[in-house]
Amino acid sequence: MTISPNTELKQRLLTPGPTAVPDAVLQEMAQPIIHHRTKQFQAIYAELSQRLQRVFRTAGPVLSIAGSGTTAYEASQISLIKPGSKAITIASGKFGERWQDVYDQYATTLGVEQIRVNVPWGEAVDPAQIQTLLSENPDVSIVTVVHSETSTATVCDVKALATVVSQTDALLLVDGITSVGAMEVEMDAWGIDALVTGSQKALMLPPGLGYVGLGERAVQRLSEVKPQGYYNLDLRRWLASWKKNDVPFTPPVSLIRGQRVALEMIENVGLDATIARTRQLADAGRAAFKAMGLTLISKSPSDSVTGAYYPEGVDDSKFRGAVRDNFGVHIAGGQDGRGAKWKGKIFRISHMGYVDAEDTMVCLGAIEAELIAAGVAIEPGTAQSAVAPMLNE
Amino acid sequence: MTISPNTELKQRLLTPGPTAVPDAVLQEMAQPIIHHRTKQFQAIYAELSQRLQRVFRTAGPVLSIAGSGTTAYEASQISLIKPGSKAITIASGKFGERWQDVYDQYATTLGVEQIRVNVPWGEAVDPAQIQTLLSENPDVSIVTVVHSETSTATVCDVKALATVVSQTDALLLVDGITSVGAMEVEMDAWGIDALVTGSQKALMLPPGLGYVGLGERAVQRLSEVKPQGYYNLDLRRWLASWKKNDVPFTPPVSLIRGQRVALEMIENVGLDATIARTRQLADAGRAAFKAMGLTLISKSPSDSVTGAYYPEGVDDSKFRGAVRDNFGVHIAGGQDGRGAKWKGKIFRISHMGYVDAEDTMVCLGAIEAELIAAGVAIEPGTAQSAVAPMLNE
Repeated sequence: MTISPNTELKQRLLTPGPTAVPDAVLQEMAQPIIHHRTKQFQAIYAELSQRLQRVFRTAGPVLSIAGSGTTAYEASQISLIKPGSKAITIASGKFGERWQDVYDQYATTLGVEQIRVNVPWGEAVDPAQIQTLLSENPDVSIVTVVHSETSTATVCDVKALATVVSQTDALLLVDGITSVGAMEVEMDAWGIDALVTGSQKALMLPPGLGYVGLGERAVQRLSEVKPQGYYNLDLRRWLASWKKNDVPFTPPVSLIRGQRVALEMIENVGLDATIARTRQLADAGRAAFKAMGLTLISKSPSDSVTGAYYPEGVDDSKFRGAVRDNFGVHIAGGQDGRGAKWKGKIFRISHMGYVDAEDTMVCLGAIEAELIAAGVAIEPGTAQSAVAPMLNE
Repeated sequence: MTISPNTELKQRLLTPGPTAVPDAVLQEMAQPIIHHRTKQFQAIYAELSQRLQRVFRTAGPVLSIAGSGTTAYEASQISLIKPGSKAITIASGKFGERWQDVYDQYATTLGVEQIRVNVPWGEAVDPAQIQTLLSENPDVSIVTVVHSETSTATVCDVKALATVVSQTDALLLVDGITSVGAMEVEMDAWGIDALVTGSQKALMLPPGLGYVGLGERAVQRLSEVKPQGYYNLDLRRWLASWKKNDVPFTPPVSLIRGQRVALEMIENVGLDATIARTRQLADAGRAAFKAMGLTLISKSPSDSVTGAYYPEGVDDSKFRGAVRDNFGVHIAGGQDGRGAKWKGKIFRISHMGYVDAEDTMVCLGAIEAELIAAGVAIEPGTAQSAVAPMLNE
């Protein structure tokens, strides 16, 4: 930086989760602790449940589960599959691969047979392929898919997938961890059977809560399948409590309080406006990357996160360290998986949650400056000039 | 109250979890969010792990798991049992019964055969009985026990149990959810193989984290048993990350920050001093209850929580409502289980964590006042006179 900061360098979190948390939410979480078996907590929890339903765009239950997004997704995978049936598991990145790993663990105990659909990283699954697989395999009881694959900054067409899957007896289980609250996800209108997200992405909370929305067919499935081989992760237990505006185990009270406030903030602005803003920031990110001559990692870019390959000669660790140390901007690198090894080869920035045009401008400026410092031929000001009209309009 | 409060009634949380959280911890949790893959977080997490080891009195790993205490205990139950073996499951209250319920869910998938030891509620298990069972059943691979049974305010002799179990190939898995940080638990010295606690009891944090301490034999067991039928709850995954000062899934960053500060506060006072204070408050609670003519619910009272039966004619809901509305004091009622139905018949107060002599005096005074208001023949001032010398010395 050419101008010294007047204090410690301001930190800006542009990582795709955890994302920044608004002060009002942090302050709410710092309120004195209340017991969860009180009217005060019950009122907070009821309001949270209703706000979650509106954000999920569903009239059905949305369960709040202590743990990570992975906790909530595993619970959904094992509670909703019919034991001894097939699962179509779509992967085109690290998280899709994780859901395959989860079912691997249950191959024997739940008798899960996977039909793995491995799409190249950075590409989206073709719904027609799933339609064919479903018609060839009538004993598929669940299809798992990641809506916005954070590791590859890629979105797939969940609406089309839901149309395909809803014509069969299979349920569609969607990982919406970086899509709910960031991009259009119409749970009921599209016919998504189960939708999972986490607190630390678009929903502007620290990590520690996962959410599961259940459609009518999923609720029906829960009543048909005999629970076995899990306790904490049994969605039946969570659903039974939810119907009484309760939770089966001591809940993370402070996080639940904070989430109510964060959702109130989102709804005050409006979910549609929030989604539109995320889209604008993503458009700007993509435009800036392209203007700087970078290649996007995705052929079907998500609005939650934007990623680019490093130009030759840029060292990942040094570059991100410089962006952080010189500008206080935190961005993410790449991840390794079975489908690709992207550690050291790419970097990613987030557009989800509590991030605005100014943060994004600072982030893009920092990236440009440090790419130039690393020897990449970019005309200074390229990134910001490319996006200023988009962000300042 | 005869003197009106100068503002809203001050609230005092005397429930046995969640317990009150110190301001400094709440403020720490309200710090701007940081990413978990940073040196800043790694330093916090490393310090937390070391402080947890000191509080657990162990040189071995103590894992920090997102979720409730139940999450951490289930993970330990299923990761440490040898599939197809027997488990001695000791229950003398609602939580011991829960651990039996958990293994019920794994009867088929993990082939768990339970030897249920059901001790009357309010009594402690006899270690000699467990010694006999172990000698009769050499294929027992795990013994589960609750050190401080919160539902019955009862402590059992874990030191003696550990001596018995350590002479066999079985592992002792201890629910220390309301004992760690509140009473003497010497994990290594006593030979406890696995010790579990939660954040929201004696450790002065909101709910949302569970901790698992692993002894040498438990670590060895993890390397021998083939993981199957779980993913999130697989302790192997958590242990492998712990060895790298890392976590396998996005951790609840704000809670982890808060826990580091809460443990620092405990260690600044001293763990022994904290345990001694808890004992003093418990002694006072028991003395006050007896002075008011109440009967304790436990024949082997825990120092974490004290419970008493209601005198005839006192309505649970009205009484606790009056204690809360007139004095701002929150206490707990009773719970129903298989071994007893204590809902409406008992009440309980906590001595764990961020509670002091003054809070306890207020609580006992409120209980006395509302028992008198409910028609119980108690001389006003009985409770406080009985304990003032104990608390003000």
